[in-house]
Amino acid sequence: MRSEIISLYEGRSDVTLTTYILDDSAEMLAGKKRPAVLVCPGGAYMNCSDREGEPVALRFASMGYHAFVLRYSVYGEGKREGFPDLSKPLPVKEHSQYPVPMREIGQSLKFIREHGEDWLVDADRIAICGFSAGAHNCAMYETNWNRPVIYEYLKTEPEKIRPAAVILGYTLSDYLYMKEMAEKQGPMALGLFAASNTSFLGEAEPSDDRLELVSPARHVTAQTPPTFLWATAGDNLVPVQHSIRMAHALADHGVPFELHIFEEGDHGLALADQTSAAVRSQINADAVKWSALADAWLKKRFAFDLPEMTEFERMMAEQEKAAEL
Amino acid sequence: MRSEIISLYEGRSDVTLTTYILDDSAEMLAGKKRPAVLVCPGGAYMNCSDREGEPVALRFASMGYHAFVLRYSVYGEGKREGFPDLSKPLPVKEHSQYPVPMREIGQSLKFIREHGEDWLVDADRIAICGFSAGAHNCAMYETNWNRPVIYEYLKTEPEKIRPAAVILGYTLSDYLYMKEMAEKQGPMALGLFAASNTSFLGEAEPSDDRLELVSPARHVTAQTPPTFLWATAGDNLVPVQHSIRMAHALADHGVPFELHIFEEGDHGLALADQTSAAVRSQINADAVKWSALADAWLKKRFAFDLPEMTEFERMMAEQEKAAEL
Repeated sequence: MRSEIISLYEGRSDVTLTTYILDDSAEMLAGKKRPAVLVCPGGAYMNCSDREGEPVALRFASMGYHAFVLRYSVYGEGKREGFPDLSKPLPVKEHSQYPVPMREIGQSLKFIREHGEDWLVDADRIAICGFSAGAHNCAMYETNWNRPVIYEYLKTEPEKIRPAAVILGYTLSDYLYMKEMAEKQGPMALGLFAASNTSFLGEAEPSDDRLELVSPARHVTAQTPPTFLWATAGDNLVPVQHSIRMAHALADHGVPFELHIFEEGDHGLALADQTSAAVRSQINADAVKWSALADAWLKKRFAFDLPEMTEFERMMAEQEKAAEL
Repeated sequence: MRSEIISLYEGRSDVTLTTYILDDSAEMLAGKKRPAVLVCPGGAYMNCSDREGEPVALRFASMGYHAFVLRYSVYGEGKREGFPDLSKPLPVKEHSQYPVPMREIGQSLKFIREHGEDWLVDADRIAICGFSAGAHNCAMYETNWNRPVIYEYLKTEPEKIRPAAVILGYTLSDYLYMKEMAEKQGPMALGLFAASNTSFLGEAEPSDDRLELVSPARHVTAQTPPTFLWATAGDNLVPVQHSIRMAHALADHGVPFELHIFEEGDHGLALADQTSAAVRSQINADAVKWSALADAWLKKRFAFDLPEMTEFERMMAEQEKAAEL
């Protein structure tokens, strides 16, 4: 395995692509390219959580796919301090604002394609998989990869940066719905919403037009790639309605999708087992099933093209046939 | 992840330990040590199969454990030529003969313990996992780790190189039984048995005493570590009786064990899914379940010691309690 950390920008260490490139072997795929999965951790666009990084990449690597973790631009600039003090207005920062984070997904897909021969990545079969804000970033990408905001900026053709599949864990999908809910819930929710807007949109109270622009559930088209969604109805931070609204839009436009909503479970379960848990309450016997469900779903698109049998088996079968005649 | 290839002997590249060391994170175990699994691929002591190496290591890494692949000394010296011509007697080679391969497991466990602080490996919780001849090597080790042939040679105390658990996939366990079967099956089986003896024991027709010595099913004691075995009844190369005899011996000595025999499936299924398959016939919908069964079995010993809930959850719970009073 080749595991290394690659900086997306010279002179900056906060935006990185960590590689998990599987070894080629003469005994198996023997030089054939493998599909890959690019993982986008969550963290409210404030940081990128480790819990939704390497453990998830290794889960996909253990399915036989190359894996990558993208730490995209976030408000916290990759520092470990955690959330800023939300009791006072946040200073505006430019580097992590829309459309930067979703462009970095495109930049990564372009970069991986450029290294496809060296790494033996099948660049036409790359899935992107995000959690929470990372899932929002993936949902933004899957509804924007074929728009100039991405492909013109990256000076590439859209089909070269189209994800083959998208996996969204407890996603956000509708900022207008979020505003509506925050207004109902009162001052604390409104404070959080203002902070989130400042970090991602550069202003505490963006217009409805701007909120609509970052609401992927409102921009799904027939060109949106196949999508697997999972969430927990018990999520107290990001209402499960975000996943449901995204699924509704995918259904409306005839996009192949799969949706799994588990009854119980808090926000941020990641893999929902000990591999990504900080505490036991993040282990959940139901939600833990999502990665096996995603494995089965991915295999419909990413199954390896293997010969039916070995040379020895073929020889034996031919001998048997000859004996029958 | 830190993945590197370490040579066990200076100046030799055929015997190596490949590391898959998981990243530490302040968000999860935060400096706590993790258990590990050492993987021994099979290959009839002629070579070490890639199909039973990295894909298996990544399966255990995706369970949250550090993983290692040990390419122990084999007759083929790590070259990729495949099996030698068995129609003429094999030249005798010293480097891969008993007890070298099992000593290299001990050498690896000692080496990993020495790097336990740096790699954050919990050296008291290392499992060894082998397939076919690699499983025989593990079975040899689990019945010899506390005998001078291993610990005196390695100049260490046995409890420092005791595996915490052992996983055996379609193992060999009884060379006397193998001889009995080869005599019944005729010239081709006897030729294979002679070649195998030459490579592993340095002579085509070893005495029954020597065959008994390399039959781990005959050397199980109460000190043999807990063992998980799996195999397929349809195995045409290594009869499933080897797994059954090993399980019988473990039961006789009160060693905790688990045994799964799937009805169908050929020899050498490895993970029995596309991650380790060269051909589609190596994908098996039943046998594929072994790694999930092994995951559950390992967790009884290797579960992480995590706090019950987050600081925030604890605070909320205390407030609720206070409100009730």
